[in-house]
Amino acid sequence: MRVLGIDPGLRNLGWGIIESDGARLRHVANGVCKSAPGALSGRLLQLFEQLSHVVENFAPDAAAVEQTFVNKDGVGTLKLGQARGIAMLVPARAGLEVGEYAPNTIKKTVVGVGHAAKQQIDHMVRLQLPGVRIEGPDAADALAIAICHAFHMRNAGHLSHALAKAGA
Amino acid sequence: MRVLGIDPGLRNLGWGIIESDGARLRHVANGVCKSAPGALSGRLLQLFEQLSHVVENFAPDAAAVEQTFVNKDGVGTLKLGQARGIAMLVPARAGLEVGEYAPNTIKKTVVGVGHAAKQQIDHMVRLQLPGVRIEGPDAADALAIAICHAFHMRNAGHLSHALAKAGA
Repeated sequence: MRVLGIDPGLRNLGWGIIESDGARLRHVANGVCKSAPGALSGRLLQLFEQLSHVVENFAPDAAAVEQTFVNKDGVGTLKLGQARGIAMLVPARAGLEVGEYAPNTIKKTVVGVGHAAKQQIDHMVRLQLPGVRIEGPDAADALAIAICHAFHMRNAGHLSHALAKAGA
Repeated sequence: MRVLGIDPGLRNLGWGIIESDGARLRHVANGVCKSAPGALSGRLLQLFEQLSHVVENFAPDAAAVEQTFVNKDGVGTLKLGQARGIAMLVPARAGLEVGEYAPNTIKKTVVGVGHAAKQQIDHMVRLQLPGVRIEGPDAADALAIAICHAFHMRNAGHLSHALAKAGA
């Protein structure tokens, strides 16, 4: 199963794709969609087109987006929300359900604790995807989201399998 | 010139289209794109598809979206931001520049004062678009945005015309 993780942002929107085969993970690709400064509508269009290209190219089976951190800076929250709208829309257009994970859930899944440093996440992503070349911190976060989603889907799968076996 | 106004919202996204011929305005159509409760990605997709249909159907030449009011409710701001991302993207995909106006600018343009009541906006929209049937308050706001954009574009046109005539 091919899993796409997305770390939304208006300037830099990170993406990462992994292949999950039961317990084993394999890196497929990662990168960053970028929008050049200018009119907001044009920036959103750039992100939409670049991310659509990624989805067409790599045909993921599942997708997940980080739940944006809502802070006191309303203008920043709004900007991020607009980019996040695009991040949710593009995989939905390809017929995918889009999972959402809070930053702490992603950290807990990938590193084991909810308040891990960026560096630690980067390290654990590299450890789980041997030989990966990561295109910057936003792509690392996106790969962490993909790993988190693969883990949670696998566990959900185990659960439904066990329930089916138990005749529940 | 055909102008599309959009009042973004996740549940109800109002749209209104007018024809602007110099000083005269004419109503073309208005309505509300709706998303049913459910996964966020699915809701954004519904708005995207409905609004894309409006743009394809009516082929506007220009578009404008209300600048969202950033409030203290971060979760609400984020939700609105995501819907607003779709509202900006759809006309951009059709090659349109998308204007943005603060709520007070729209009120000042349509009603004459920045702190007009909803009812007053509705009244002035009806006055300027005789015979219009409005599909609810979100569509009325969207028509007000379209009127505001038509007015500002006309004034910008007059200015550049006067400058050209003056050889500036």
